Amino acid sequence: MSNQRVLTGDRPTGPLHLGHYVGSLLNRIELQNTYEQFVMIADVQALTDNFETPEKVRANVLEVAYDYLAVGIDPKKTTIFIQSMIPAIPELTMYYMNLVTIARLQRNPTLKNEIQQKGYESAIPVGFFVYPINQVADITAFKATLVPVGEDQLPMIEQTNEVVRSFNRLYNAPVLVEAKALIPEKGKRLMGLDGKAKMSKSLGNAIFLKDSADELAKKVRSMYTDPTHLRVEDPGKIEGNVVFDYLDIFAPDKKTVDELKAHYQRGGLGDMKVKNYLLEVLEAHCAPIRERRKMFEADPQQVMKILLEGTRHAHEIAMQTLKEVKTAMHLLY
Amino acid sequence: MSNQRVLTGDRPTGPLHLGHYVGSLLNRIELQNTYEQFVMIADVQALTDNFETPEKVRANVLEVAYDYLAVGIDPKKTTIFIQSMIPAIPELTMYYMNLVTIARLQRNPTLKNEIQQKGYESAIPVGFFVYPINQVADITAFKATLVPVGEDQLPMIEQTNEVVRSFNRLYNAPVLVEAKALIPEKGKRLMGLDGKAKMSKSLGNAIFLKDSADELAKKVRSMYTDPTHLRVEDPGKIEGNVVFDYLDIFAPDKKTVDELKAHYQRGGLGDMKVKNYLLEVLEAHCAPIRERRKMFEADPQQVMKILLEGTRHAHEIAMQTLKEVKTAMHLLY
Repeated sequence: MSNQRVLTGDRPTGPLHLGHYVGSLLNRIELQNTYEQFVMIADVQALTDNFETPEKVRANVLEVAYDYLAVGIDPKKTTIFIQSMIPAIPELTMYYMNLVTIARLQRNPTLKNEIQQKGYESAIPVGFFVYPINQVADITAFKATLVPVGEDQLPMIEQTNEVVRSFNRLYNAPVLVEAKALIPEKGKRLMGLDGKAKMSKSLGNAIFLKDSADELAKKVRSMYTDPTHLRVEDPGKIEGNVVFDYLDIFAPDKKTVDELKAHYQRGGLGDMKVKNYLLEVLEAHCAPIRERRKMFEADPQQVMKILLEGTRHAHEIAMQTLKEVKTAMHLLY
Repeated sequence: MSNQRVLTGDRPTGPLHLGHYVGSLLNRIELQNTYEQFVMIADVQALTDNFETPEKVRANVLEVAYDYLAVGIDPKKTTIFIQSMIPAIPELTMYYMNLVTIARLQRNPTLKNEIQQKGYESAIPVGFFVYPINQVADITAFKATLVPVGEDQLPMIEQTNEVVRSFNRLYNAPVLVEAKALIPEKGKRLMGLDGKAKMSKSLGNAIFLKDSADELAKKVRSMYTDPTHLRVEDPGKIEGNVVFDYLDIFAPDKKTVDELKAHYQRGGLGDMKVKNYLLEVLEAHCAPIRERRKMFEADPQQVMKILLEGTRHAHEIAMQTLKEVKTAMHLLY
């Protein structure tokens, strides 16, 4: 066991999909064997752009927890916790806000993009604007040294380490620790069903871990392939073809995939045949997850108990950090 | 006893002076007999523009407490508490930040002025920028209905009530209560020793409650009077004359003050004579305060015990509000 600590998590705004599975969940199942891992259900952060529908956030805390447990995030190895139950995080956020300027936040490229995407213009909620500092508190509260992020989130790690260095220098105590980004291997981003670069709930192009076998089949059949591949005998393209993209990622039998690709490219292989093969492959992944999820769904109280136990542990660690922070700041009475 | 609740307080950036005594402390000694009063030592807020010298803030928490107790703020009637020990305040701040836009903060005239005065230009610390929302949390955490403020602080009360209304409407629960500003009577702002409109530690023109009799005498002798009043026999002006300004405020014997004013205006009354009279008047106010302060200074542990007891009570009340807020937001697990 390494002495590195991982912090990661999700905003509970919907159930998790295959994009999460490939992009982060599988990674976490690996990481929990090597590192001390904290997985945060970020309800407070979800509220920064869902504050008008808190009941949705609340409901999805459990949905996300079901998904975690179903895929094999093991509460014996990973601390799963609820962000809003860690009061040290907002306290740390308050102190860190003194160490970051408005101009610095405005320069954060991730935040800039998101503000543009959301069309806030001048009506940016303060909570959304300062969420990078809230993330600094998330990461440092647990003294996480490794944070799995996409490349687009690298500015958040930079911001974290700036605060860490400012704090330690200003208060002359090595309380906070810098974090490293753990960037997943290339090619682990899953396309949407419609061929868009990203699978996402809001784009309506996602396969959810909770989808039934029927829903899965329906979604696979609707997948974007090669729009010019009209007749079976025509040659088809595999670039940008969602079905082959998924096969590359999910099919364990690479030889069969290579044969299918060659056949499809020279013509004579219908979309339906490939889709049926993909469905088999995905079902092999999804069926056991779906079954385990049903088991957890049937006992929400047990799942909440797991979350509360994880949260209790996370709370203790964050309180210890807060105590060290306040000591360095001469704020213990 | 009214069922109104007062919240007020000070940033512990220095010992309190006669400006505080006249402008707020005397008021609090009155208010504590009629209302349930909470007096906050706002160390977290003080840090927003003193984050580089937290040891100064820490030391002044006790200084301010000595002053409170010395003037007669009675911990049996008034809850005195330390802001940084109330974790509900940063939690509430996080949730309220979703309800206020950046543009709205930028329009806050008090904040605008302060940012200009401090010469932050583009390097405004986020903590300073968002402190009006922190104040909303201070006020609402205690469901304060009355907040004694100067006219320059009215925008803070407006901001508070905007958040209160937004929150209650959005989460469809009458959890938060609006606050009213309690504006002190006109003329209760004390000039500085140098004749500047405001007494302040940073301007170096203050008489502190902790000043010794010698320091007090020295400061009274240095007071700005009428710079054209060079010889005793000359007529002098009383407008803008600090000595007469103070006599108006502190001297119980209005008749003598009127006589002195008339004499000074027609000539024949030297500055020293008036200053000596003022010194007597001030010493009558300050001597008992100074004596009581010495008593408290001699037992800092007892004073800290008083603060911790007040803080415990304040914490309970703020946690109850936080619970109601989180319930309305579907955030109780």
